[in-house]
Amino acid sequence: MLKLYYAVGSCALASHIALEEAQAPYEAVRVDFVSGAQRKPEYLAINPKGRVPALVTERGILTETPAILAYIAQCYPQARLAPLDDAFAFARVQAFNSYLCSTAHVNHAHLARGSRWADEPSSLEDMKRKAPRVVGESFSLMEREMVEGPWVMGSTYTVCDPYLFTVARWLERDGVDIARFPKIHAQHQRMAERPAVQRVLAEHAKP
Amino acid sequence: MLKLYYAVGSCALASHIALEEAQAPYEAVRVDFVSGAQRKPEYLAINPKGRVPALVTERGILTETPAILAYIAQCYPQARLAPLDDAFAFARVQAFNSYLCSTAHVNHAHLARGSRWADEPSSLEDMKRKAPRVVGESFSLMEREMVEGPWVMGSTYTVCDPYLFTVARWLERDGVDIARFPKIHAQHQRMAERPAVQRVLAEHAKP
Repeated sequence: MLKLYYAVGSCALASHIALEEAQAPYEAVRVDFVSGAQRKPEYLAINPKGRVPALVTERGILTETPAILAYIAQCYPQARLAPLDDAFAFARVQAFNSYLCSTAHVNHAHLARGSRWADEPSSLEDMKRKAPRVVGESFSLMEREMVEGPWVMGSTYTVCDPYLFTVARWLERDGVDIARFPKIHAQHQRMAERPAVQRVLAEHAKP
Repeated sequence: MLKLYYAVGSCALASHIALEEAQAPYEAVRVDFVSGAQRKPEYLAINPKGRVPALVTERGILTETPAILAYIAQCYPQARLAPLDDAFAFARVQAFNSYLCSTAHVNHAHLARGSRWADEPSSLEDMKRKAPRVVGESFSLMEREMVEGPWVMGSTYTVCDPYLFTVARWLERDGVDIARFPKIHAQHQRMAERPAVQRVLAEHAKP
C-alpha cells in the first residue's frame, strides 16, 4: 500500500488530495514540522531532503509534488487526473505544475523561509516585505495566461487543480487577496466543494 | 517544425541538447538577454513569463524545462530519453528534474537575480555571499542521494543528464568546485564528450 508523508499546511496537501481523488489505497502519515520531525534521522532515512511530500511505493520512495502527481495520475488512469494519451496536453499539465513548484511556491517561501538564501535579519525582513508583491505577480500571470477555467486546464479536472488549490491556500498568509484573481478564486471555491478535498482537509484539521 | 527559443548561459541549454539527442527537426532561435529582448512585446507574445526556454509546437507553446524535456522524450521514443513505459521510473526522472528546477536552479538564481525577491542592496549582497554554500548543499545532496552514475539514473542516459549538465555548468560562477562531487564531475565530463552536446555548445558559442 502507498504511504504518503505529509505536514499540515505544506504542499503535500496536493498529493494527498490526488490520492483521495484516485481512490488509491494509501496510508497518510503526518510529519510534525513544529517539533522539527522532518530533520530527525528517522524521517531523513525516508526523505534525505527533509521535506514533504514523500510517497513510499513498493518500488521505492518518490518526492517532489509534480512527479508524485503525475505518478498518481498514471497509476490510476480510471480517475482521469491527467491527459495520459496526449503528449502535448500532458506537457501543459507538467508545465503548470512546474511553474507552481519552481516559481509560485518559491515566491511564497521567501515570506517565512528566507533564511534558506540569506542570513541577516534585515535581508529576511526585506524578503518578507516584498513577498506579497512577488506572490501576487505570479498569481496574476497564472490568472491571465495559464488558468483556463473552470478548472486549470479548462473543462477537465486534472492534478493541476489540487496543486493550485494548495498554493492558493497560502495567499491569505502572504497578504494577497484571492479575489484579485477571479478564475483562480472560482476554482478555489469549486475545489472546496469536492468530497475528496473535504475528507483530506478534515484529516489535516485533526489535532 | 519545432522552434526552441533559448538564451546563451540559460537553462534552455538542456532542452536544446535534448532536441539534438532526439534528432528532432527543429530550429533554435536565440533571445538576447543582454539587450533585454526577453521583456519586449515580441517575445512576451511567445512566452508571457519573459523567460526561456519556450518550445513552439504545432499545437501551441510549451514552457518549463521539466515539461519540455518530458515532451521531447515522449515525442521521440526511439531516442530512449526517458523510461516511458514505467510509471515509477518515469516519476524518478520527473522528481530529479523537479529538484533541479525548484531547488538547484533557484539556489543559483540568488547569486545574480536576488532582486526577484528583495530590494535592498544589502539583501542582494547577503544572498550573493550565501549562494555558494546553498548551491553546494544542493549539489552535495544530489551527489549523495540522487545521482547513480555514470548517468543520473544509472546505466541509461535520460533527459536528466542534459539538465544536470546545464545547471552544473553554473557551478564555477557560483564559486563551487565541481570536483567536490565525483559522480557529478564524471557525468559532466562524459556529457562534454557527446557529439550532440558539442554541436549545441558550438552553436551557443557563436557571436
